[in-house]
Amino acid sequence: MGAEVTRLREQVATLHGELVRYGLVAWTAGNVSARVPGVDLMVIKPSGVSYDDLRPDNMIVCDLDGAVVEGDLSPSSDTAAHAYVYRAMPEVGGVVHTHSSYATAWAACGESIPCHLTAQADEFGGEIPVGPFALIGGDDIGKGIVATLSGHRSPAVLMRNHGVFTIGKDARAAVKAAVMCEDVARTAHLARTLGRPVPMAREDIDSLYDRYQNVYGQPGVSSAAP
Amino acid sequence: MGAEVTRLREQVATLHGELVRYGLVAWTAGNVSARVPGVDLMVIKPSGVSYDDLRPDNMIVCDLDGAVVEGDLSPSSDTAAHAYVYRAMPEVGGVVHTHSSYATAWAACGESIPCHLTAQADEFGGEIPVGPFALIGGDDIGKGIVATLSGHRSPAVLMRNHGVFTIGKDARAAVKAAVMCEDVARTAHLARTLGRPVPMAREDIDSLYDRYQNVYGQPGVSSAAP
Amino acid sequence: MGAEVTRLREQVATLHGELVRYGLVAWTAGNVSARVPGVDLMVIKPSGVSYDDLRPDNMIVCDLDGAVVEGDLSPSSDTAAHAYVYRAMPEVGGVVHTHSSYATAWAACGESIPCHLTAQADEFGGEIPVGPFALIGGDDIGKGIVATLSGHRSPAVLMRNHGVFTIGKDARAAVKAAVMCEDVARTAHLARTLGRPVPMAREDIDSLYDRYQNVYGQPGVSSAAP
Amino acid sequence: MGAEVTRLREQVATLHGELVRYGLVAWTAGNVSARVPGVDLMVIKPSGVSYDDLRPDNMIVCDLDGAVVEGDLSPSSDTAAHAYVYRAMPEVGGVVHTHSSYATAWAACGESIPCHLTAQADEFGGEIPVGPFALIGGDDIGKGIVATLSGHRSPAVLMRNHGVFTIGKDARAAVKAAVMCEDVARTAHLARTLGRPVPMAREDIDSLYDRYQNVYGQPGVSSAAP
Repeated sequence: MGAEVTRLREQVATLHGELVRYGLVAWTAGNVSARVPGVDLMVIKPSGVSYDDLRPDNMIVCDLDGAVVEGDLSPSSDTAAHAYVYRAMPEVGGVVHTHSSYATAWAACGESIPCHLTAQADEFGGEIPVGPFALIGGDDIGKGIVATLSGHRSPAVLMRNHGVFTIGKDARAAVKAAVMCEDVARTAHLARTLGRPVPMAREDIDSLYDRYQNVYGQPGVSSAAP
Repeated sequence: MGAEVTRLREQVATLHGELVRYGLVAWTAGNVSARVPGVDLMVIKPSGVSYDDLRPDNMIVCDLDGAVVEGDLSPSSDTAAHAYVYRAMPEVGGVVHTHSSYATAWAACGESIPCHLTAQADEFGGEIPVGPFALIGGDDIGKGIVATLSGHRSPAVLMRNHGVFTIGKDARAAVKAAVMCEDVARTAHLARTLGRPVPMAREDIDSLYDRYQNVYGQPGVSSAAP
Repeated sequence: MGAEVTRLREQVATLHGELVRYGLVAWTAGNVSARVPGVDLMVIKPSGVSYDDLRPDNMIVCDLDGAVVEGDLSPSSDTAAHAYVYRAMPEVGGVVHTHSSYATAWAACGESIPCHLTAQADEFGGEIPVGPFALIGGDDIGKGIVATLSGHRSPAVLMRNHGVFTIGKDARAAVKAAVMCEDVARTAHLARTLGRPVPMAREDIDSLYDRYQNVYGQPGVSSAAP
Repeated sequence: MGAEVTRLREQVATLHGELVRYGLVAWTAGNVSARVPGVDLMVIKPSGVSYDDLRPDNMIVCDLDGAVVEGDLSPSSDTAAHAYVYRAMPEVGGVVHTHSSYATAWAACGESIPCHLTAQADEFGGEIPVGPFALIGGDDIGKGIVATLSGHRSPAVLMRNHGVFTIGKDARAAVKAAVMCEDVARTAHLARTLGRPVPMAREDIDSLYDRYQNVYGQPGVSSAAP
């Protein structure tokens, strides 16, 4: 397990760089975690630490109740939400949270993002749903994420008045979902302010989703969310 | 032919960096290809590989039916569309596909971009047209591109609910068309949301297009699309 | 005191890089200052100098009337405003001024930014207020900042037709407030142009603000504005 | 004169990097020139060359009719416009042309940018005016620039359906005007799409302009446009 934790500390520290690269985060307001396979542990960002200062050795290892197992710093203030998702959704191996601007604008309006793009059909299988408003500090955010995403194709939820949570089979898949969520949220916003987006047929969305989850990418390297 | 393939592997790998630099692509969602002159082959991006990891030696060489001739990875999932264009349009030496945000917003609305800018008249000769909705997986996308661009001045087509395909005499010209397409799509969106764009006279558009295709740039270094 | 001034020269020079990184400033149009604790001095950017050329040794040390104490260059043309704030608000240790685009658009419309986001509740405790129009050259800008922010939770004020001033317990906290102000101003603009942002309950805003100011981040490393 | 040309080749090559840094140009669509003081010569970008490849030794020296005096490449296709400005406005030492997105959106609508920002009052002294539509290839663009900017405070003109031309006492001042023009064009667009920008009083605009042109920056280092 030690080698796996070492690998995940490095992966989680590095993946935060993708949030920065794609402009999904300001200051310290976003975080990535990974489940440690086979044990009830997760690796997560420390709270309030600059992305420039993230390194494998300052990542925090917590149990799935959010208690720190390894690490000198406090874990992300969103740890309880990540932990709840791992407890409730055993197929999830990675969780990401951001306040990326366009997706959060949809969240502020309490509107799900309708599917007008083949890229959205591919990755999200249709609309990106809105979850409930929930206060930080207990299990409410986690419950809202799980209630919205359970049985839904989308690996992303827009938590109302808050921001985005994404899930994936591993942390890299969850980060990809966060990047693609902002990308389709931006295009959908630009289309809405431009004119009348053309609806897509349900069977076309289904066909695209099915193909993307099963065919895209290199053999044996699934890009699919759980 | 070996030296030409070596040169094009390097050019195609490098040109993907321009898609990243101009913000036209998220994650792995865009691709560049080049025809190998004089033979029925093309060089194209591997599928689902990060732009950071593209190198001349992992580019894929395919025949013009999309079958892999050289390369250990699967080619881009858009290979069939690129291949169809090369088969149908012998004057085309490069093809680019992106989901760049502003251009794709026009595509989501099924609206061609009207010509209100001298830069658009120069590069596109008028409006940038919308192509049909088409599912990935067969020749439908390729057919839609060719049907829209054949006999049209524009080297770019906005495939409905999908994104942009551009063509050029070589891969660099197609990348340039993709960059300029997003640039004029953004300005046209900003003009539409600001006020009432002023129409341009057809003869002014014609005059600008004619001059740009024949005079601009250095002698002997044509910037024109086919 | 010499060691403290040396430390603050370095901190203030470096923090300007955050304004550049987050795209809050064009050319030379934004500035950071820090109070020197325990004495009536401040460290501030020189006027009209490129961000590339800022170094600890060309920062300017002024007294709290804005008179230069150390430095060969003229201090920022906004020095009088910074100085007024330090004189009137003893709890303030850092001041930042920018014309960041989205926040300044709200300022141009003379509209405060309503609170539709948990991130805004956390950092600003509710709306980000508008201050009066004031001409540069005397104490009018400083008076407008102090009149607006005294007794207000927000560490940011949108000065009408002008731009943003933020305060903090130190320069880093004021820079953080400037970064977060633009981030929430952008999301609020995108939400407004998208649809109808959902109001947040006053008690939820209060609860979020209270928690963030007292719990977030690492123990002993307060992120709160004064 | 040789030393001055050497200095200006370096300055003009370097200043193009500012157009790239501030996102004012796509591909090769913008250019900077500088008058060689005391002689009827100018230094300008070569046509159709990538910004990455600009170096002091491939800048072009032209006379003020646009004929090449030194250089192996063709000069910018906008050379005639730059040259006309230098012939007609002896106080101008630098000219810049871009298609920066927000400013060009105003140009596409044929609308001048009203002055709702102190930063615009400082740099432009009021509205940024629209110039006529003009075809490239003769003196029409130059005439339109000169007719619009002669006797106007603004160092920037929005050429209808085209883009921005700026002037300055030297090339650096003209580049600054191009950067600030896009900055205020963006904020003005965001304010217009947000709500109702508050008008500024004419005497406040005058007061700000007068102060900025005479007081701002370091003594002896005027930031003013001519």
